[in-house]
Amino acid sequence: MSESLHATAPTQFTEAGGVRYAYRKFGRETGTPLIFLQHFRGGMDHWDPLVTDGLAAKRPVVLFNNRGVASSSGETPDTVEALGDDLAAFVESLDMPRVDVLGFSIGGYVAQAFTLRHPALVHRLVLVGTKPRGGEDEGRHPDVTAVATRNPELTLEDLLFLFFEQSEDSQAAGKEFWERRRRRTADVDPPTSEQTTQAQARALEDWREVRGERYAELKRISQPTLVVSGRRDIMVPTVNSFILAQNIPRAQLIIYPNSGHGSHVQYPRLFVDHVARFLDAEPAFS
Amino acid sequence: MSESLHATAPTQFTEAGGVRYAYRKFGRETGTPLIFLQHFRGGMDHWDPLVTDGLAAKRPVVLFNNRGVASSSGETPDTVEALGDDLAAFVESLDMPRVDVLGFSIGGYVAQAFTLRHPALVHRLVLVGTKPRGGEDEGRHPDVTAVATRNPELTLEDLLFLFFEQSEDSQAAGKEFWERRRRRTADVDPPTSEQTTQAQARALEDWREVRGERYAELKRISQPTLVVSGRRDIMVPTVNSFILAQNIPRAQLIIYPNSGHGSHVQYPRLFVDHVARFLDAEPAFS
Repeated sequence: MSESLHATAPTQFTEAGGVRYAYRKFGRETGTPLIFLQHFRGGMDHWDPLVTDGLAAKRPVVLFNNRGVASSSGETPDTVEALGDDLAAFVESLDMPRVDVLGFSIGGYVAQAFTLRHPALVHRLVLVGTKPRGGEDEGRHPDVTAVATRNPELTLEDLLFLFFEQSEDSQAAGKEFWERRRRRTADVDPPTSEQTTQAQARALEDWREVRGERYAELKRISQPTLVVSGRRDIMVPTVNSFILAQNIPRAQLIIYPNSGHGSHVQYPRLFVDHVARFLDAEPAFS
Repeated sequence: MSESLHATAPTQFTEAGGVRYAYRKFGRETGTPLIFLQHFRGGMDHWDPLVTDGLAAKRPVVLFNNRGVASSSGETPDTVEALGDDLAAFVESLDMPRVDVLGFSIGGYVAQAFTLRHPALVHRLVLVGTKPRGGEDEGRHPDVTAVATRNPELTLEDLLFLFFEQSEDSQAAGKEFWERRRRRTADVDPPTSEQTTQAQARALEDWREVRGERYAELKRISQPTLVVSGRRDIMVPTVNSFILAQNIPRAQLIIYPNSGHGSHVQYPRLFVDHVARFLDAEPAFS
């Protein structure tokens, strides 16, 4: 295995709007940066090194903690739109004229809000295990919220339930991801606070509300978009990815077999190949 | 452009079960052959050279006309299952122990029946613009059958209506495909007969009937499968591809933007990259 930049890239800080944002930037010096937007309660340490290092091979990769999350200062706001505006402030503070965005779960909600509110900042969009405002809840497991919040940080057991199918292969892939996720041991984030958990939970609830015509705002996302999901996502039901790709005008959909919310970390090499192919094509989809 | 084997590969013949099957084989000498199964009324000349040549770069590619179609002898049967059995006879006549199968539209129905009835012959499966037995017809354009049968052979106008979205980009891609599709000018097929048209039409009707528990037989397809569709397919509604990928245990789904039944010829290079990535991974989905 070559050196993992994910494990060694130093945490840096930038100021914007009175917040000190923590971030890590690594990979190629040139090219459109790809910003990663994390799941509920998650921080920079919780990505899959195979995914971040894999994508960093051909572009700058930026991990960051949004306002109030882990090593970033401030209070986490409680709407997805406010989270999108904070992301815009962060992007502008680093003088990045335009970015690619990879949003996972609530990070995918933020990616959509960010794109709709700050379209000039977004080049291309990767939406993983996520859903539109007012999306479908049918297929969601009733224990999801309880398991996602029962421990100060997600345990292996929590992850195996929330992110993977109950099949032997998927559970085995989950354990491998768990090992990779613990590979960074120095300069790591503190746990996410209770304030962040509560505010993000309110943002999740607010995202459930339909506003105006259902899914109409998706038609205003003009960026090339790659939508990715596992086949049986018990947190964000898979049909939401079908809906995203049916409504975002320039969206391609990929659904992986035998997988759930964490399909991208169950098939990290395949996911990296698909995302790199998508980000690098010029024009898109050629 | 390098030499097109699609344009120059000679038509060959093999005998099985009293039928003289026409086929063309080209590309790499070694590796699992990839057999192409064509759409309603279509023959070997009607594939996209960018797709066949593209995939032939890393494997043997086999185009063939099933029983009764164009340059193959015999009477076309009128059930999908019989078409699958004829394919098995063809494969065995060429001493191919196991094949990859790419089925488009009715060719995808045949690919499913072939896999269910002759599982030992099938390595991996690519299902494009197709549907399961008893699939969904909602979203099908009422003029599809009339347009698909109104001319002795599909015209450019027919194709632009049936295979592409009514957007400027999709229609332009359709015209480019039409030019590529006419690139082979020597040793071409005769038109498909009225007998084949009628028999395939009856097979299509029969495939509409649910037998037993709807979609249950898909669970018996154990081969790694790639399901591909355009976002708005007016011939075989797109939701059928979602259903296939939800029910075939080891299926990955890809849906392309701004495209219809011919999404694979609208994005031929992207499609070739995705299919090659899928066929070559070992184990599948890694």
